[in-house]
Amino acid sequence: MHNSDPVRISGPNALSAVEAARQIAAGSLSSEALVTACIDRILERDNLVRAWVCVDTEGAQRAARACDASAATGPLHGVPVAVKDVIDVHGLPTEMGSPIYAGYHPLADASCVALLRAAGAVILGKTVTAEFAGIAAGPTRNPLSPTRTPGGSSSGSAAAVADYMVPIAFGTQTGGSILRPASYCGVLGFKPSYNTVNRAGLKFAAESFDTIGHLARSVEDIDLVWRVLTGQPQRALPDLQSPPRLALFLTHYWHRASPETVAAIASVTTRLAADGIIVEDIAVPDGFEILSDARRTINNYERARAMSWEWHNRRDEISPQLSQVIADGSIIKFEDYVEAKKLVEHWRHWFAAETHSYDAVLTPAADGEALEGIESTGSSAFQEVWTMLHVPAISLPLAQGPNGLPVGVQFVGKLHRDNELLALSKWLMDRLSVSETIPNLKHAYTQ
Amino acid sequence: MHNSDPVRISGPNALSAVEAARQIAAGSLSSEALVTACIDRILERDNLVRAWVCVDTEGAQRAARACDASAATGPLHGVPVAVKDVIDVHGLPTEMGSPIYAGYHPLADASCVALLRAAGAVILGKTVTAEFAGIAAGPTRNPLSPTRTPGGSSSGSAAAVADYMVPIAFGTQTGGSILRPASYCGVLGFKPSYNTVNRAGLKFAAESFDTIGHLARSVEDIDLVWRVLTGQPQRALPDLQSPPRLALFLTHYWHRASPETVAAIASVTTRLAADGIIVEDIAVPDGFEILSDARRTINNYERARAMSWEWHNRRDEISPQLSQVIADGSIIKFEDYVEAKKLVEHWRHWFAAETHSYDAVLTPAADGEALEGIESTGSSAFQEVWTMLHVPAISLPLAQGPNGLPVGVQFVGKLHRDNELLALSKWLMDRLSVSETIPNLKHAYTQ
Repeated sequence: MHNSDPVRISGPNALSAVEAARQIAAGSLSSEALVTACIDRILERDNLVRAWVCVDTEGAQRAARACDASAATGPLHGVPVAVKDVIDVHGLPTEMGSPIYAGYHPLADASCVALLRAAGAVILGKTVTAEFAGIAAGPTRNPLSPTRTPGGSSSGSAAAVADYMVPIAFGTQTGGSILRPASYCGVLGFKPSYNTVNRAGLKFAAESFDTIGHLARSVEDIDLVWRVLTGQPQRALPDLQSPPRLALFLTHYWHRASPETVAAIASVTTRLAADGIIVEDIAVPDGFEILSDARRTINNYERARAMSWEWHNRRDEISPQLSQVIADGSIIKFEDYVEAKKLVEHWRHWFAAETHSYDAVLTPAADGEALEGIESTGSSAFQEVWTMLHVPAISLPLAQGPNGLPVGVQFVGKLHRDNELLALSKWLMDRLSVSETIPNLKHAYTQ
Repeated sequence: MHNSDPVRISGPNALSAVEAARQIAAGSLSSEALVTACIDRILERDNLVRAWVCVDTEGAQRAARACDASAATGPLHGVPVAVKDVIDVHGLPTEMGSPIYAGYHPLADASCVALLRAAGAVILGKTVTAEFAGIAAGPTRNPLSPTRTPGGSSSGSAAAVADYMVPIAFGTQTGGSILRPASYCGVLGFKPSYNTVNRAGLKFAAESFDTIGHLARSVEDIDLVWRVLTGQPQRALPDLQSPPRLALFLTHYWHRASPETVAAIASVTTRLAADGIIVEDIAVPDGFEILSDARRTINNYERARAMSWEWHNRRDEISPQLSQVIADGSIIKFEDYVEAKKLVEHWRHWFAAETHSYDAVLTPAADGEALEGIESTGSSAFQEVWTMLHVPAISLPLAQGPNGLPVGVQFVGKLHRDNELLALSKWLMDRLSVSETIPNLKHAYTQ
């Protein structure tokens, strides 16, 4: 690891959740030391990165000491976790990236938070979200290159994990809000099948698409959290029984791919071919591009309704970008909304049939390296289709661009076959990951 | 109308929402007079009925006066509405029928509440829900026969509408929580197609099924609110272009129908036959009954997760009934949950194909008249299938039982064809309703 601060990066805060939990259970690491190392990292770096809305220093240290004083209660015993600030945490504010919710305290943990706590996790704090998980960016910078966006809307979650402030963070994806920041920050971002991670305690953006997922620095950590959330026993990620059958599906947005994204896809297919795995093309079918119109229709119609109270009572505190979405959604006709939902359903069936003989689809995770500037969190073009189709998707940090910044590659599984997608992801990371999962951080220190 | 209190029942509180809105817009009725009449009715009757958790007397009268001081802003201008206490209302507590949420104040209106307010509605207060919209009953009594249950979990909403305390109330249905109390209390209960009424601001029970709907005393009022919620222009309910094509589908629970439910179905088919409309039978297909197992699996798995914070932190304040559901759901295997969802999806497709040539399916709304006692809110047998299948369903008060109490008849439409179901419902009510929509209230006054 090239880094100007190798001592810190080799500290407990650099451990994976799996390894940290193992050491804590073995007594060779205390949760308090781990949490303290994460807090120290935040104190050192967050003035620059601005990944956090709220760090619960006292509460997390108290919880860590309680973990240290008791036997392991679950697979995340003593491991710190961050929570995107559109997801409720008991005892902390949920501010949604909006002045409307400044200081707002919900009563209960969201389902996903309570489930992780019950598995022993320590909630370290809340991470920056774009306003209401939309497109109006927060203050977070890409830790790998602070003049650039970390992506969004799960901006703080991706940046905090990439910067070794916390091993695991929750995000949400309605368009591309988990996989794009994961790609831009060089971590793994997982969007499970729709309607598998319970959404109680999430502020909705567009409920037909809203999906809770998580970001981490290893497939094993992604799998660990996934299995806690769904109530599956922990496992060592299994070997594949046979070489994976993969298809390449570049979507109608392929023309938007930057040279580094084109190169990332080529690099992965070439390396797979060297292993004897031929990735077959799926052509973009006629009419597929209309999905993007349907997405706008459904997203904006639902967004306008989910934000109805804020719109009618606190409109001057809503950003111009979100106001435009709500105003547009307010005049979409119900018949058009219903037709858009039927269209998406059609393509869900098409995708299931078309990919029947494959294990996963290979496709870009993002249009390229993280953009310069933090005003825009980037385009959801390469993520939104998969969110709409409800299938599981993961971004793996398998390539780098011309500036040494990460370029993710996306693998899309089949509905409710998330377990298989994660086993495949482990296989892919073992064979294809560049020498370091996260590119060196020297950019962050030299700017 | 047979009633011991004809003056009160003929007061403004007995008006439909459509008629009240018309009179308010015409200047022949003030919103304040209407709201005051509703409050007076509540003051007179709610010691007995106990439909309300919270009546916002001051806030509603203030809002009513504001309506009276301004021109009509929407189709519900000045009309009071009640909200089931699992749905958030700004400025009022949301207590979920649970001591855990005593005094809990959310910030925002739920989407459905904000949309009605924006159409001019006055939020009158919160109505009793069974604990977390589950099966542990609240204190509400059936206004038509106070020794009996009003049904649940939207108990207070059904009772308040039936007792002329308010013309419209929101409910939610995860199993049978709108249509059963509607049937028991002799009002109309409408569960729209799943994922059409936005759920932002609703506490989830089981998000795969949770559906917000509403109760009223006329089809026109149901339609009015439905169109506000979905952003459709108001309409006079259209005449049918041709006689309706109806199918009878009695489900695997038909053996549970009481004699009065059997008679209600027979009465409706006989009266339709007199109009020349032959209702064709759909036989219960092999394996259909497994849907009930799938419902338990999905409901309990999701319920355990939606209630994770309460379960791990406030368990001794959860009822034994709900604790049993959560404990069961906590050990359901993820694979079984996924299989159950696939099974339900299979039957959704079956239903769409099987009913392709019909306008609606006729089926019981409940197993009979309201049960004696208020400890149980009754069985969801005759409602739960339709909630699972995501299709729109309405209970119409078309029959009475041996005690003079209402027996609803359910009509089930096709996914996203809610508009057609409401037009059909108008046609049915015009032809088939017993002379009074709501049976006489003398029971309430003589006990």
